[in-house]
Amino acid sequence: MCSPEVVRSVAADALDAGPAPASGGTPWDDAPALAVPPEALARLRRVRDLTHTLTPDFPVFPGYPPFRARSLATVEENGYASAELRFVEHAGTHLDAPAHFAAGGATADALPAASLVAPLVVVSVAERAARDPDAAVSVDDLLAWERRHGRIPRGAVVAMHSGWEARLAEPGRFLNADAAGTLHSPGWGAEAARFLVEERDVAGAASDTLSLDVGASTGYEAHRVFLPAGKYGLENVASLGRVPPSGAVLVVGGPRHVGATGGPARLLALF
Amino acid sequence: MCSPEVVRSVAADALDAGPAPASGGTPWDDAPALAVPPEALARLRRVRDLTHTLTPDFPVFPGYPPFRARSLATVEENGYASAELRFVEHAGTHLDAPAHFAAGGATADALPAASLVAPLVVVSVAERAARDPDAAVSVDDLLAWERRHGRIPRGAVVAMHSGWEARLAEPGRFLNADAAGTLHSPGWGAEAARFLVEERDVAGAASDTLSLDVGASTGYEAHRVFLPAGKYGLENVASLGRVPPSGAVLVVGGPRHVGATGGPARLLALF
Repeated sequence: MCSPEVVRSVAADALDAGPAPASGGTPWDDAPALAVPPEALARLRRVRDLTHTLTPDFPVFPGYPPFRARSLATVEENGYASAELRFVEHAGTHLDAPAHFAAGGATADALPAASLVAPLVVVSVAERAARDPDAAVSVDDLLAWERRHGRIPRGAVVAMHSGWEARLAEPGRFLNADAAGTLHSPGWGAEAARFLVEERDVAGAASDTLSLDVGASTGYEAHRVFLPAGKYGLENVASLGRVPPSGAVLVVGGPRHVGATGGPARLLALF
Repeated sequence: MCSPEVVRSVAADALDAGPAPASGGTPWDDAPALAVPPEALARLRRVRDLTHTLTPDFPVFPGYPPFRARSLATVEENGYASAELRFVEHAGTHLDAPAHFAAGGATADALPAASLVAPLVVVSVAERAARDPDAAVSVDDLLAWERRHGRIPRGAVVAMHSGWEARLAEPGRFLNADAAGTLHSPGWGAEAARFLVEERDVAGAASDTLSLDVGASTGYEAHRVFLPAGKYGLENVASLGRVPPSGAVLVVGGPRHVGATGGPARLLALF
């Protein structure tokens, strides 16, 4: 007995496998090549966890239920502890798969493994965001980063650092809704998103806010550029001010449930 | 307003941070050091996803509810797609935190980031397991691995490869319950577990079966050695026969929800 889900799962594994190894080869010769060059890997010495702890209080998009955990067993009573979890895919530090905004787009379980190990580019708009909660990353911001650090590598994950996580200590300030309910938080401008997709062929984009888009967006312009182009998003990313702006490698421990439009991701930056 | 959960989350981040950087340093000087030496990183060229896709059909421990996803929105109707997920922490390819078997043990959100980037050691018992579904990894198996590949590195994740995942095509054969309901699948022997904890100071242990323990275990002997010692477990690991037995680096994209006794993990092997 082999359900459709199992068949899809096996097919996704086969996608990663590539052609069968030549005779005399090993069962690992067919593994996908890393998108990060050996000289960049050789420089890595440290690791930073870019993941927030997901709690029932972590701000979610208005209307979504919060994260919940229900204890099923405890060490004291049962000898082991476990819980049942219930949450929306787009909660906490999480990945947006192309399928989140594109019918027929890749779900998270179908993302190629090689795309999940990526050069990390951190573009800071923290100074501007401190004055203007609607600040958007512009093409000029990207070109300024490139003047200092060199061309954004193909296959990179490009992250906006706005400093917004400091507001998590007072959750209302993280979403930052005005009296009319409009959210005000920094995000990716649509032109910058188009530049990264069309001119730099990135693997994905990230933000330290709830959304790739500015909070006040109603049209999800940045989402609609990145995701239908097959790029993934990372939202509510932690500690982007505590990693170097260039030279780090991001390993994206994204979700792998069937049909995932997204889900919690453990993000580890090596540098 | 700052809830206890947020305070705990901030405290866990601080644990990773270490001491404040010396004056003149950068905000990333205080990041934890990798447990993998630079020369091992410089050799990495490929990546293999060791994660099974989690589906409603993926075998779970008897009595646990299956993984469920409930659609909240679709691209066709809402312009974007998302779902609410519901599952037990110990489903699919997942991490067991020390707290799973130790009152007061570390929860997954409190594991140090450096422990999640580890040398990967793969010990195959596939030939024996093909004849004996109750096969257990022994100290002799570990010493035989060391004779071929050198000493198991401190901080490694040591994985049992039994070939059991081939049985996922027929889920009943993966759990392999007998007429009395006793499960029969390979696992870690308690002596081998003690050797890895006491003599090799590993970061964790892994298996390609539902449990670190042999299926017929009722006392969870291997769990009770590894987890209370502060080591983590990885279960239902995929494709262990398709990575080299020595020299790979495992990046453990484990769960980071508050109080996690475990949870889904995206496992990427670089080699």
